[in-house]
Amino acid sequence: MPRFALKVEYHGGPFAGWQRQRDQPSVQGAVEAALARLEPGAHTIAAAGRTDAGVHALGQVAHCDLAKPWAPFRLMEALNYHLKPAPVAIVDCAQVAGDWHARFSAQERRYFFRLAMRRAPVTHDKGLVWQVPHDLDEDAMRAGAAHLIGLHDFTTFRSAMCQSASPVKTLDAIDIDRVEGPGGAELQFRLRARSFLHNQVRSIVGSLERVGRGAWTPEHVRAALKAADRAACGPVCPPQGLYLEGVGYPEDPFGAD
Amino acid sequence: MPRFALKVEYHGGPFAGWQRQRDQPSVQGAVEAALARLEPGAHTIAAAGRTDAGVHALGQVAHCDLAKPWAPFRLMEALNYHLKPAPVAIVDCAQVAGDWHARFSAQERRYFFRLAMRRAPVTHDKGLVWQVPHDLDEDAMRAGAAHLIGLHDFTTFRSAMCQSASPVKTLDAIDIDRVEGPGGAELQFRLRARSFLHNQVRSIVGSLERVGRGAWTPEHVRAALKAADRAACGPVCPPQGLYLEGVGYPEDPFGAD
Repeated sequence: MPRFALKVEYHGGPFAGWQRQRDQPSVQGAVEAALARLEPGAHTIAAAGRTDAGVHALGQVAHCDLAKPWAPFRLMEALNYHLKPAPVAIVDCAQVAGDWHARFSAQERRYFFRLAMRRAPVTHDKGLVWQVPHDLDEDAMRAGAAHLIGLHDFTTFRSAMCQSASPVKTLDAIDIDRVEGPGGAELQFRLRARSFLHNQVRSIVGSLERVGRGAWTPEHVRAALKAADRAACGPVCPPQGLYLEGVGYPEDPFGAD
Repeated sequence: MPRFALKVEYHGGPFAGWQRQRDQPSVQGAVEAALARLEPGAHTIAAAGRTDAGVHALGQVAHCDLAKPWAPFRLMEALNYHLKPAPVAIVDCAQVAGDWHARFSAQERRYFFRLAMRRAPVTHDKGLVWQVPHDLDEDAMRAGAAHLIGLHDFTTFRSAMCQSASPVKTLDAIDIDRVEGPGGAELQFRLRARSFLHNQVRSIVGSLERVGRGAWTPEHVRAALKAADRAACGPVCPPQGLYLEGVGYPEDPFGAD
């Protein structure tokens, strides 16, 4: 059976998350239902990151096995046709080796987070950003974030529901940019690691927001990390500002075409 | 009665347009209803541009007369409170002279247009861009647009419903930028004039799209303009990529604070 890698973009708003669930709409379920329109029967796809309810993706990667030797472009077009009107789009598609795995072959996950700073409610970006009504000090936030880079026990920044075998992870980067837009300023975070713990990005951004408004010092982030105690974490921020931006592999499956 | 200028941002999707209508939701109606929560009675506000159904605004400007001497910041906060959950936000507010008029004092309107070029359906930007499935040649479009700059009879690019006394207008600028985003490339148009005819921007962008995909030469735009005939226009493009970006006045009413 030929195996295909799919790059998937979605708006997380209408979904209970990536993972298929019996009673609620999921992104995985939507893609699997579209696959069943192409080749009848049950399909089970695997993805690099299982995003939570309300979390978006710009470049989620999944793989599927099909009976027919689809031309990747035609497969992408057919899936997008059957995915409508759900806000899920296949933005790239490539055939991969039979032992290639969207999750287990992945070497890096990149997350993006949008934090809008303004008092007036957002209109066009509703559901696409986390909004706070005050300005934030991004230099202090960068100083706080610097304490998290590298190999650490991230127990503080990990959901109690996390199923990862170990809380010890290497965080490669947290970049914070201030972007001025027509509707005001926002902070854009980019985080990069081999893998993330459950709720790790939202726990980190929620804690850094406390630094940005002066409720925590940057050093408080270091103390929270060292505590290795979930109770030391700042508030977990809401999901709608978070995007799975991309996934890295030893060789980019989409790079060839 | 003190007069206040309001800078209004909105998502045009749920509205039949700016202008109040008896049976359909309008942005004007939403703002007037919020004003009635602050000071009971009927309110009638005037705006610089009467946007069509589905058209957005980043910086629409309106004015209202109130009985009480509201502090502008408090007025803005109170209106935003009562506008919820409609995607309409007052993003600036200032007291102005009693003879200042949002429409008649305006000297310039600026429109912004987003045209996404990609095959896969847009997800996050649904309702916020016009999507075409092919790439466009923006250099050809710029060459076509250049024929429209200056004082012309814009009959070709004017809706049959247009109520303007004259089709002769001066178009000051059409700038076209290519912007690469995570979901693909888009063209962003910025148009500037003292005033616009009904459907003028959408008629121009729809015609320039024909140039961008090679169906028209840039010179075809000049011929269409010279024809001064509505039938010579390209297809009027859909409203969801269009934003009233801002309004210019001899003195910026919001500049002082």
